[in-house]
Amino acid sequence: MTPEQLDAADELAFARDLFALPEGVIYLDGNSLGPLPHATTARLSAVIAEEWGGDLITSWNRHDWIGAPARVGAKIAPLIGAAADEVIVADSVSVNLFKLLAGALAMRPGRRRIVVAAGDFPTDLYMAQGIASLGLAEVIAADDPVAALDDRTAVLLLSQVNYKTAALADMATVTAAAHRAGALVLWDLSHSVGALPVDLGGAGADLAVGCGYKYLNGGPGAPAFAFVARRHQADFRQPLSGWMGHAAPFAFAGDYEPAPGIGRLACGTPPILSLMALEVGVELIAGLGVDRLAAKSRALTELFITAVADIPGLTLASPMGPRGSHLAFRHPNAYAICQALIARGVIGDFRDPDILRFGFAPAYLRFADVAAAAAILAEIVATGAWDRPEFHARQAVT
Amino acid sequence: MTPEQLDAADELAFARDLFALPEGVIYLDGNSLGPLPHATTARLSAVIAEEWGGDLITSWNRHDWIGAPARVGAKIAPLIGAAADEVIVADSVSVNLFKLLAGALAMRPGRRRIVVAAGDFPTDLYMAQGIASLGLAEVIAADDPVAALDDRTAVLLLSQVNYKTAALADMATVTAAAHRAGALVLWDLSHSVGALPVDLGGAGADLAVGCGYKYLNGGPGAPAFAFVARRHQADFRQPLSGWMGHAAPFAFAGDYEPAPGIGRLACGTPPILSLMALEVGVELIAGLGVDRLAAKSRALTELFITAVADIPGLTLASPMGPRGSHLAFRHPNAYAICQALIARGVIGDFRDPDILRFGFAPAYLRFADVAAAAAILAEIVATGAWDRPEFHARQAVT
Repeated sequence: MTPEQLDAADELAFARDLFALPEGVIYLDGNSLGPLPHATTARLSAVIAEEWGGDLITSWNRHDWIGAPARVGAKIAPLIGAAADEVIVADSVSVNLFKLLAGALAMRPGRRRIVVAAGDFPTDLYMAQGIASLGLAEVIAADDPVAALDDRTAVLLLSQVNYKTAALADMATVTAAAHRAGALVLWDLSHSVGALPVDLGGAGADLAVGCGYKYLNGGPGAPAFAFVARRHQADFRQPLSGWMGHAAPFAFAGDYEPAPGIGRLACGTPPILSLMALEVGVELIAGLGVDRLAAKSRALTELFITAVADIPGLTLASPMGPRGSHLAFRHPNAYAICQALIARGVIGDFRDPDILRFGFAPAYLRFADVAAAAAILAEIVATGAWDRPEFHARQAVT
Repeated sequence: MTPEQLDAADELAFARDLFALPEGVIYLDGNSLGPLPHATTARLSAVIAEEWGGDLITSWNRHDWIGAPARVGAKIAPLIGAAADEVIVADSVSVNLFKLLAGALAMRPGRRRIVVAAGDFPTDLYMAQGIASLGLAEVIAADDPVAALDDRTAVLLLSQVNYKTAALADMATVTAAAHRAGALVLWDLSHSVGALPVDLGGAGADLAVGCGYKYLNGGPGAPAFAFVARRHQADFRQPLSGWMGHAAPFAFAGDYEPAPGIGRLACGTPPILSLMALEVGVELIAGLGVDRLAAKSRALTELFITAVADIPGLTLASPMGPRGSHLAFRHPNAYAICQALIARGVIGDFRDPDILRFGFAPAYLRFADVAAAAAILAEIVATGAWDRPEFHARQAVT
C-alpha cells in the first residue's frame, strides 16, 4: 500500500485533529516533547482563570487540586499495567529516581549495589551516583546489567526502552532474574509509557518511574510519576519526606509520618498548572488505546526504515526486533543533518556522538508524513545541503 | 485617617488592577496562594499556544526555556539581597531543603546535627528528618534554636518569618551566632520573600530556599528557588544530581559533573508552564518595590489589629514588634469562624489547633478591604454565625 492508502486505512487517523500541530512541520520528536492537545489549551485556560483566578486558595478543596497527584496517577495506571493505587504523579523523573532508589536500598539491608545499564539515560546514572555520593551505595554501570546481578545487588535500575537506541528490554525476564538474585527492579518507563503496552503487574515489577512530557503529551517539563507495587508500599520508606507525603499534612505535626500507600511518595506542593496539563494528555492517550498506538508505531517505523535504507552513510542503530517508538541512525554528519532537517521542517534530534533520533508518535503522525520525512532526509544527504556553517553551530539544547 | 483616605493616599493603589480578583471577595490568604496577575494569563496563553504548541521542542533554544531556571532566579535575587548568580529556580521548597541540608552537612564533616526551630513549617522539619532517616544526621528541634547551636551543629535551618505566628527572625544576628558556632545557616524565606525586604548578602547568609506561590504570585505549586552564597558554590555538592545540574547535560556523559556555580542546584527537567507563570509574578512584585510593599503591609496589619482589638475571645498570636505580612489570632472556635468568614467572602485560613491566620499582601489589598474584613469578623463572633454544622465540617485542605 502507498503511504496515502495506509493513512486512509488508519483507524487512528482521526486523532491527529486532537493536537495543535504547526503547518509545514513533520514532528518526529514527540519522544522528547509531545505536542499540545487542543483540549489542554481549553483546560488550562479554565484552571488559570476560574480555578486559580476565581476560586483562589479554595480550589485545593473545591477543584480537588489536593487529590490531583493520586487522581492523575490512577489515570496513568492502566497504561502501565498497574493498579490505580500504585501510581502517583510527583516531581521529576530524576527526583523520583532518588526516592525509589533510596527506598529500595532500605528494603535490602546489607546490599549496597545499584546496578545500572551503561549507556542508559544520563539522569538515571547521575541520580544513582548522587545516592552513592552520600556513602549509601555503590553504582555498577554494566554493559550487561542482568549478568552483573549478585547477592550484593539491592536494586537494578533499567529503562524499558533505551533513550538512544530504542532497544526494548524484556520486562518479565529481567524482573525475574533480579528477583532470583534477591534484588528489586526499578523500571524507567520514560521512553515507553504511552507508546507501548507496559505490564508492570504481569512482570511482577517492584518499582517504576516515568516521564509526563514525552508520549503522554503533558507539556514541557510535565511532572513525572512513581509506581510502587502494592505489596511493597506498607514497608516503603523514602527520604524526601515532604509535607505532601505526610499522613495528615494539615495537622502540622512535628514528626513525619508517611501517608498510607502510594501517597508517601509525594514530597512538596505539586505544580498545579503543569499537573493539570498532564492530566489532559494522559486522558487523551489512554482514550486512544495503547495497543492500537503501539501497532501503528511499529508500522510507521517499518515504513521509515525501508524508505531510508539506501541513504549513503546512514546505518540503523536500533534493533530490528523488539523496540520502542523511536529510531536511531548513525551518520558521521548527524549533527548538521539534524539541523538541516529542522530547517526543512522535519524535527528530530541529535544525540552524541553521531546519532540521529526520530520519534514516531502514533497519535498524530501520518504515514505520508513519515514517507515525506524520509524523502527530505535522502535529499539533504544526496545534495550535501547539510554542509552549511549554520548547521554546524551547536545549540544549547540538542 | 479613614480607610478610604488611606487608600486615596496609597501610592501602591494602582497595583490592585494588575490582578484578577473575584468580585465580593476579600482575599486574606495571599500568604498561602497569591492571586493571578492579568499578565500571567496573557503570558501563559503565548507559552502554551506559540511556544509549546507552535515551536515545540525547538523552544528550549528559541525561547530559552533552558535558561529559565537561572533567568528567573536572577530576577528573584534583588528581592532577597542576593547576586544574580546566587539564585536558581528548581523543584519545590521541600526538595530544595533536602539538597541544601545535604550539601551543608557535606561542608561540615564531623558535625551531624541539623538544628531546627520547633514549630517551624512542618516540611522543614520533615525534610531534615528525611536526611536523618538515611543515617546522615540527627535533628534537634529546639524552642530556642540559637541556644542549641554548638560544635556538633552542621547547619541551622530556620524560617525568616514563622508560618504561623509571623514572628520575624533577625537574620544578621542569627547568622552571626551560627557562624560563631562554626555552623552554616539555611534560611527558609517562604513567608518573607516578596513581602518584606530580605538581605541575605548583608547578613552574610550561606544558604536559602523560598516559595514561588505565596507573595511572588507564581501560581499554585509554582517552582521554588534555592540560594547558595557565591563563596560556597565551588565546593557545594548536593546529592540530587540530575541531568539539568550537569556541567554539560547534552553531552550525555556517563558520569555526573556538577555545573559551575548555582546551576548545580538544578536536578530534573523543570515544569515550564509553572515556571513561566512564576516569572511573571516575580517581575510584577519586583517592579512594585519591596520596601514600599513592606511599609504598606505594616500599615495594613496595624489597621486590622486595631479594628479587631475588642472582639471577645480573640487574641493576637503574632508579635507587636518585627513580623511578617500576616497575622495570627487564637480563638477557641477558630476553625468554624474561618469557614464562616469564607462563606462571607473573607478568605483567611486556619492552622491547628486554634489559629486564625490572615495574610495582608500589600500589592492588591485596600485599607477599606481590611476594615471591612475586621467588621465581618466582629459580626460573625458577636452573632454566633459561625456555629452552624457546615462550618464545623473539616475540609481536606485547611
